[in-house]
Amino acid sequence: MTEYTARVEPVATGRRLHIPIPLRWGDLDAYNHVNNTAMLQLLEESRVRAFWQALPGETAPPTAVLRPGLDTGVLTLVARQEVEYLAPVPYGRYPLDVQLWFGKLGGSSVEVCYEVCSPPETAGDGGQVVYARASTVVVKVDAASGKPLRLSAEERAAWEPFLDEPIAYSHRR
Amino acid sequence: MTEYTARVEPVATGRRLHIPIPLRWGDLDAYNHVNNTAMLQLLEESRVRAFWQALPGETAPPTAVLRPGLDTGVLTLVARQEVEYLAPVPYGRYPLDVQLWFGKLGGSSVEVCYEVCSPPETAGDGGQVVYARASTVVVKVDAASGKPLRLSAEERAAWEPFLDEPIAYSHRR
Amino acid sequence: MTEYTARVEPVATGRRLHIPIPLRWGDLDAYNHVNNTAMLQLLEESRVRAFWQALPGETAPPTAVLRPGLDTGVLTLVARQEVEYLAPVPYGRYPLDVQLWFGKLGGSSVEVCYEVCSPPETAGDGGQVVYARASTVVVKVDAASGKPLRLSAEERAAWEPFLDEPIAYSHRR
Amino acid sequence: MTEYTARVEPVATGRRLHIPIPLRWGDLDAYNHVNNTAMLQLLEESRVRAFWQALPGETAPPTAVLRPGLDTGVLTLVARQEVEYLAPVPYGRYPLDVQLWFGKLGGSSVEVCYEVCSPPETAGDGGQVVYARASTVVVKVDAASGKPLRLSAEERAAWEPFLDEPIAYSHRR
Repeated sequence: MTEYTARVEPVATGRRLHIPIPLRWGDLDAYNHVNNTAMLQLLEESRVRAFWQALPGETAPPTAVLRPGLDTGVLTLVARQEVEYLAPVPYGRYPLDVQLWFGKLGGSSVEVCYEVCSPPETAGDGGQVVYARASTVVVKVDAASGKPLRLSAEERAAWEPFLDEPIAYSHRR
Repeated sequence: MTEYTARVEPVATGRRLHIPIPLRWGDLDAYNHVNNTAMLQLLEESRVRAFWQALPGETAPPTAVLRPGLDTGVLTLVARQEVEYLAPVPYGRYPLDVQLWFGKLGGSSVEVCYEVCSPPETAGDGGQVVYARASTVVVKVDAASGKPLRLSAEERAAWEPFLDEPIAYSHRR
Repeated sequence: MTEYTARVEPVATGRRLHIPIPLRWGDLDAYNHVNNTAMLQLLEESRVRAFWQALPGETAPPTAVLRPGLDTGVLTLVARQEVEYLAPVPYGRYPLDVQLWFGKLGGSSVEVCYEVCSPPETAGDGGQVVYARASTVVVKVDAASGKPLRLSAEERAAWEPFLDEPIAYSHRR
Repeated sequence: MTEYTARVEPVATGRRLHIPIPLRWGDLDAYNHVNNTAMLQLLEESRVRAFWQALPGETAPPTAVLRPGLDTGVLTLVARQEVEYLAPVPYGRYPLDVQLWFGKLGGSSVEVCYEVCSPPETAGDGGQVVYARASTVVVKVDAASGKPLRLSAEERAAWEPFLDEPIAYSHRR
């Protein structure tokens, strides 16, 4: 049987986490491009894999310290989202290389920044394609009251190494 | 059989189009809220219903003048998207009231602005809830070359009555 | 403003409920057809609208007597699903006409049967197109224990008028 | 940086292909289980990865010989789908182990059979959990005419090693 190999480990280079996120053919819309809303699901999944605690038996990066859920009484709500789509994303077998860092660590919220890049496995001479730049403000809230919860010292310590410049959007008006 | 009645007609009030967009229970995520990515699908659907030409036998608002598709050789690509989520959206039977207008009519692109509001049918004394504010930059492109296409005079004429102030985002940094 | 009118009320004809379910352009896949998995989401939504209790301020058909949710401790789990796709479903503004009935009312489960039909508004001389036939076995379970719960007398009474012959699948092997 | 390792290669054991399919947190519904429609998207993705040709630069199993698309004029339409859901599927980082084989190779259609199993990485003493059994009839059709197309000799040769007994459903009525 031929092997199908692909990166699966999140790795860190400098202040960026690289989270490999596989596409699904079902992410395509009638234009045969990854739909703009599916792209946001890829960002969501990269946050979950980068920042949420592993379950028993799983391994995860050291940034994976958050434990949200209706059972823990902690929710992580998306308060703001901004995306610049730079090139249409085709379907392919290799995972996209979603690069994440923090643009800001606030009292009870964080700004996660992303560059969504083509798989390194298929990069040509010009290097990887940057398909999108994006940022998400996520607020940690109490599930019952809906009130913001302070980031813990552990969360801050795990995330500070990945604090860097926020995205400078080119086309804001 | 009890009747289930709901608005289905897009209506215009002043410079805004109101597009009723029904939720699906499947839009909810594990937090029992409409997922942030599903919200973008609701925005997409409101654009399609507001701006895309009706098929034979269908009726549609006079703003519905665009005819994109792989068959027409015209694509409408999302270049930018910005969303502020103001309150969690619960599931309900009545359609959300997605209010749309144009923040800008450019040469080959438009900025669509939205306020996503709770159904008027369930509004209490405080009126409708504004769940989200958002804007999308959509570019009209040639499917084959990927190059921008000029908006037609017909498109401009149909859309200018709905040109108004763009969203003033509260939490941009 | 031109009117856009469409049925929104569930109606009953004989032993069938007709639930109008609007499509979304996002239901299309790269073949420009409603994706086979999106079709199942339409079935799910028709069940919710036919059988789940209305929220305060909403109206719903008399079959809408079930109240599942993590808050009520009752879940409705899909145990079996069978679908025959008879014709590709294109996108359109009018809701599909999802026709539902019960093929069986068991002790703690029901078999819901469906014919997914094209909108009556666009039917030609040949009548509506039947896009798919399907059936779903749904089990009522206790959220905490996962054990089956008996259908209540109220549920039985509300649903019995819609008990009819199950689907006779043509292509089973 | 801690490593996160997981199988990514399709492997064959006997007459079965094992396709690792990662979950997304967005596959969960308000019950905190992978939604029954998301499950079908996982099956779709496993078919694509098992049977569709690799793109330049990609590797894929020897069964990946089909090349559908609007550009090739060949579509693969789902004609029938049957699923038995045996246990709720929780979210986790490791890919599900979707096991595929053919229940039948027809003239222009195939029946794909599946067992959707929990990740081998998290299997306890009782072994992997079988979450679902399913089968899909896929027809190869001409995109323009919609007429069935014969399977090629190459397709038959690549797929015959994975022809085995079809699923014996326990709960059909």
